[in-house]
Amino acid sequence: MTMQSTDVDGEAAARSEPTAPHRALRNDPSQATVVDVGGVPVGGRGFVLMAGPCAVETAELTGSIARTVRRAGGHVLRGGVFKPRTSPYAFQGLGLEGLSVLADAAGAWGLPVVTEVLDAAQIPRMAPRVDLFQVGARNMQNFALLRALAASGKPVLLKRGMSATISEWLFAAEYLLDGGNPHVVLCERGIRTFEPATRNTLDLAAVALVKQMSHLPVLVDPSHGTGRRELVIPMCLAAAAAGADGLVVDVHPHPPQALCDGAQALSPELFEELVRRLGPVLDAVGRPFAARPSPLATSYASCT
Amino acid sequence: MTMQSTDVDGEAAARSEPTAPHRALRNDPSQATVVDVGGVPVGGRGFVLMAGPCAVETAELTGSIARTVRRAGGHVLRGGVFKPRTSPYAFQGLGLEGLSVLADAAGAWGLPVVTEVLDAAQIPRMAPRVDLFQVGARNMQNFALLRALAASGKPVLLKRGMSATISEWLFAAEYLLDGGNPHVVLCERGIRTFEPATRNTLDLAAVALVKQMSHLPVLVDPSHGTGRRELVIPMCLAAAAAGADGLVVDVHPHPPQALCDGAQALSPELFEELVRRLGPVLDAVGRPFAARPSPLATSYASCT
Amino acid sequence: MTMQSTDVDGEAAARSEPTAPHRALRNDPSQATVVDVGGVPVGGRGFVLMAGPCAVETAELTGSIARTVRRAGGHVLRGGVFKPRTSPYAFQGLGLEGLSVLADAAGAWGLPVVTEVLDAAQIPRMAPRVDLFQVGARNMQNFALLRALAASGKPVLLKRGMSATISEWLFAAEYLLDGGNPHVVLCERGIRTFEPATRNTLDLAAVALVKQMSHLPVLVDPSHGTGRRELVIPMCLAAAAAGADGLVVDVHPHPPQALCDGAQALSPELFEELVRRLGPVLDAVGRPFAARPSPLATSYASCT
Amino acid sequence: MTMQSTDVDGEAAARSEPTAPHRALRNDPSQATVVDVGGVPVGGRGFVLMAGPCAVETAELTGSIARTVRRAGGHVLRGGVFKPRTSPYAFQGLGLEGLSVLADAAGAWGLPVVTEVLDAAQIPRMAPRVDLFQVGARNMQNFALLRALAASGKPVLLKRGMSATISEWLFAAEYLLDGGNPHVVLCERGIRTFEPATRNTLDLAAVALVKQMSHLPVLVDPSHGTGRRELVIPMCLAAAAAGADGLVVDVHPHPPQALCDGAQALSPELFEELVRRLGPVLDAVGRPFAARPSPLATSYASCT
Repeated sequence: MTMQSTDVDGEAAARSEPTAPHRALRNDPSQATVVDVGGVPVGGRGFVLMAGPCAVETAELTGSIARTVRRAGGHVLRGGVFKPRTSPYAFQGLGLEGLSVLADAAGAWGLPVVTEVLDAAQIPRMAPRVDLFQVGARNMQNFALLRALAASGKPVLLKRGMSATISEWLFAAEYLLDGGNPHVVLCERGIRTFEPATRNTLDLAAVALVKQMSHLPVLVDPSHGTGRRELVIPMCLAAAAAGADGLVVDVHPHPPQALCDGAQALSPELFEELVRRLGPVLDAVGRPFAARPSPLATSYASCT
Repeated sequence: MTMQSTDVDGEAAARSEPTAPHRALRNDPSQATVVDVGGVPVGGRGFVLMAGPCAVETAELTGSIARTVRRAGGHVLRGGVFKPRTSPYAFQGLGLEGLSVLADAAGAWGLPVVTEVLDAAQIPRMAPRVDLFQVGARNMQNFALLRALAASGKPVLLKRGMSATISEWLFAAEYLLDGGNPHVVLCERGIRTFEPATRNTLDLAAVALVKQMSHLPVLVDPSHGTGRRELVIPMCLAAAAAGADGLVVDVHPHPPQALCDGAQALSPELFEELVRRLGPVLDAVGRPFAARPSPLATSYASCT
Repeated sequence: MTMQSTDVDGEAAARSEPTAPHRALRNDPSQATVVDVGGVPVGGRGFVLMAGPCAVETAELTGSIARTVRRAGGHVLRGGVFKPRTSPYAFQGLGLEGLSVLADAAGAWGLPVVTEVLDAAQIPRMAPRVDLFQVGARNMQNFALLRALAASGKPVLLKRGMSATISEWLFAAEYLLDGGNPHVVLCERGIRTFEPATRNTLDLAAVALVKQMSHLPVLVDPSHGTGRRELVIPMCLAAAAAGADGLVVDVHPHPPQALCDGAQALSPELFEELVRRLGPVLDAVGRPFAARPSPLATSYASCT
Repeated sequence: MTMQSTDVDGEAAARSEPTAPHRALRNDPSQATVVDVGGVPVGGRGFVLMAGPCAVETAELTGSIARTVRRAGGHVLRGGVFKPRTSPYAFQGLGLEGLSVLADAAGAWGLPVVTEVLDAAQIPRMAPRVDLFQVGARNMQNFALLRALAASGKPVLLKRGMSATISEWLFAAEYLLDGGNPHVVLCERGIRTFEPATRNTLDLAAVALVKQMSHLPVLVDPSHGTGRRELVIPMCLAAAAAGADGLVVDVHPHPPQALCDGAQALSPELFEELVRRLGPVLDAVGRPFAARPSPLATSYASCT
């Protein structure tokens, strides 16, 4: 299988550099990268569940969600503190203060933390409390940010751009790999199409294809991928069946009151239902849930 | 849940006819249409497998594929005899002669027949040997054809157009239902997007959404939906997990020599592997394979 | 410049038939097809204006629009009598009765008639009163209809499908040309994209490219191409500057009351403004308006 | 006319902040922002031409192009020195050294400079030699970069993202305007669609619509918008007719040898032809070319 730049640069990138290493591609079918995210192995046989609020709001809410995620069987707590918003007048996230809230809640429940970074300048201040830096869809080709994350050496969750081809997505990963950071996790989150009934079109064939082309782990985010709560569980099951290595889902105790993306958040009850229904599908495709660190194993655990 | 025309007509169709019946929509969550396709129930709890060559070639090949489909556990034999081709210079299918070949092979193995019809004028001559008329993606809004099929009363497999919204697809079904034909099966086969790595982008969220909005059965065609053999099995498993009622897949004994779409056809061995791997996923979502008519039960069976 | 099937058939159509004639392609740069539409030359140096209501409503309205079109400088009267509508419950057009209304109004003002045909069976009854058969975007790959129109020998206006590539569009024209009908006019009417602010995305680069690749005339329909009245004039001017051979625009005396697509129709005053503003742009690119037949020259003129 | 977030954030941004100022929108139809780019007024009646190499290569080449641009009638010299490339192994631009080359050449010919900035950290070092900072399509929603550019107070050319809706594009401008920088110029450069024959689909209706909605100047880049040299001139003429305030085009003395995007660059001869053919079209729509600063007027002019 060969990979070609689909020519956003007006030329096949591969052509211009015939000896390019393409470190994202799989040379050996048995080779698979496993990324250690705060003690959780991402990309091995085990299937991982990352869940949490779209945006971190209060300590109480975040703690409640962390408990839900941990008790139901989740592995990693997600939550946005720097939110990239279409409008400058929309809620922009709580910033570093929000990160403390998120990391405290995660630590209390033995969960590593994944959160989005928007700017290279934020990395040093965020790094001590983040286990997995998320690069959002809008920044997939923010090459300055990718280079800074490569230098940081921390695990990176690279979301596919909303109109990025698979080839462009793998080349974006290449900026991290070539920059010396092998800890790369990919995440399909839907692409932009003409269909208005869903927020994006979740491209699960891309997941199956990337799993064949690349040794990197691939997660799926059906919350952003569909934008509709009632589609999240079916798409989670489909993602697991298609070969994804895990999921990233929005969870909120009161979705209609969420400050961001409430329409796509699962309630705690639905999150528990998701885990219950995932189990048999994972069995069917021969995969267990990944192991979890013990509740107090992460370094930021502060209480309970 | 409400359905709105997404405005290809420059206005909300619903608005112009506020009392429109929307027969495709589900009024009662427990309501589900089951379409009888030559003795195979499509749309109930049972999951159906329709498989066969993209285009019918010879009697020998078709018979061999019918045997593969029947023995591996398939329910319905598919095969194109009138092929809609981009170029007038490409192979256009064997026509009515091909239909005889297809129906004879299907009959010999106790399989009902699904094949594409391109033109209202073909319906009377095709009807005696066809159990399920396929309306292809290019003809989803060929309203003259839809009206003629409504009048025929035969079961119809309505593929989603390559750039049709979910709303438009359901309105196309409405032409059949409003025309008096309740035997409608929908089929997602991928939509056209910017991604060049796959022939189309298979929209499984559309399947989950339509299953919630409508009482009609929904199948998935991952062969046309991806265009790549190596993605067909993963997408079949994903479709089953997402709630599809069955699959339509291309099978050919020698894919590289197929006259049409060889790159997406499963070999007999891969088709058997598909059935083996589907079983546990269907178990996981609580669905059995549909019952099959006994090998000689269909009315056109002519020999063994 | 070479043309390749962009693979809706899962293979390059050209590859499968290396000696395919590609009659739509230009062999000689100086070669350009001129189609005679009821006395109006389409495709030569002269620029043509086709205008009229999206759907024919009453004789009075249609007559009034015909007068507007003729007096302002238009060449051909357009109007839909068989309307392909997303919903079966939306207004479907007046049918053959509407065609009489349209043709009478056109004849009274010395204008040839262009109208959409949906089904091969309609051709014989429509042909006596139609100068240019329109194939709509939904039917661009309705190959049965294309073959019947090829056999009819009448001029055909082939609209680009809403997600058709340029290559597929030219191959659709090939069905007409290869079927023995050289009287083919192409029409760009916008493609389907993710942008919701306009009904479609008008692809004027496709017009410039097709003018270079093919000898066939190319018109542009900015009414359907944008869906917004306020964008029609700017896009008409842009189309003329890009090298189009003419325009197809919706005109209605009372756009808000139009039975179909009122939001994109020009009022008579705006249509007159369009013609006024087009003149200098056509001068700038060295093209005159096409000659018009004398008011009573068409065969169906019944009165003044 | 109202503007709504098309919901990339999963909610209408306007809804969440009902008193949002929407500074990009036009309150008074006669209001139009004119941005002073090194002495060239962008956005008034005058039409501006920005041209130059996709990537700055050598001093000799850049000087030669600057001379071509100036002599033919261009207003601003464009050239990339920090190139965002899909692949990390492709040519990444000459960096600050390239900026010196570009600014020297521009100064020698009395042309202001537009070049792309990729990262907030680059702004202070680039600002002394840049008249107009370009934000590329990939960075349209790089909000950290937008905020830093807002603070810089320098004129900004904001390219539309490759899958950005018009609403998102105007909200991105809002980050600059709300951040206190009123010197914003928009640039349409094509959107990503399914059509493979052109690199992007140039959306000229978006230009006409934004000119009606907003008081900001709008340029068009047909080089990136089509990716094909032979389409650049027709699309430039069409952009002028559609109401654009100017153009950004790639020019290279030897396009086939260009290090970046040679297929879309105009030769000097074609650039001269473009200017010759633009004149009459601008006349037709009642617009002159913008005034140009005298050859030595810009502050960085170093020699002739």
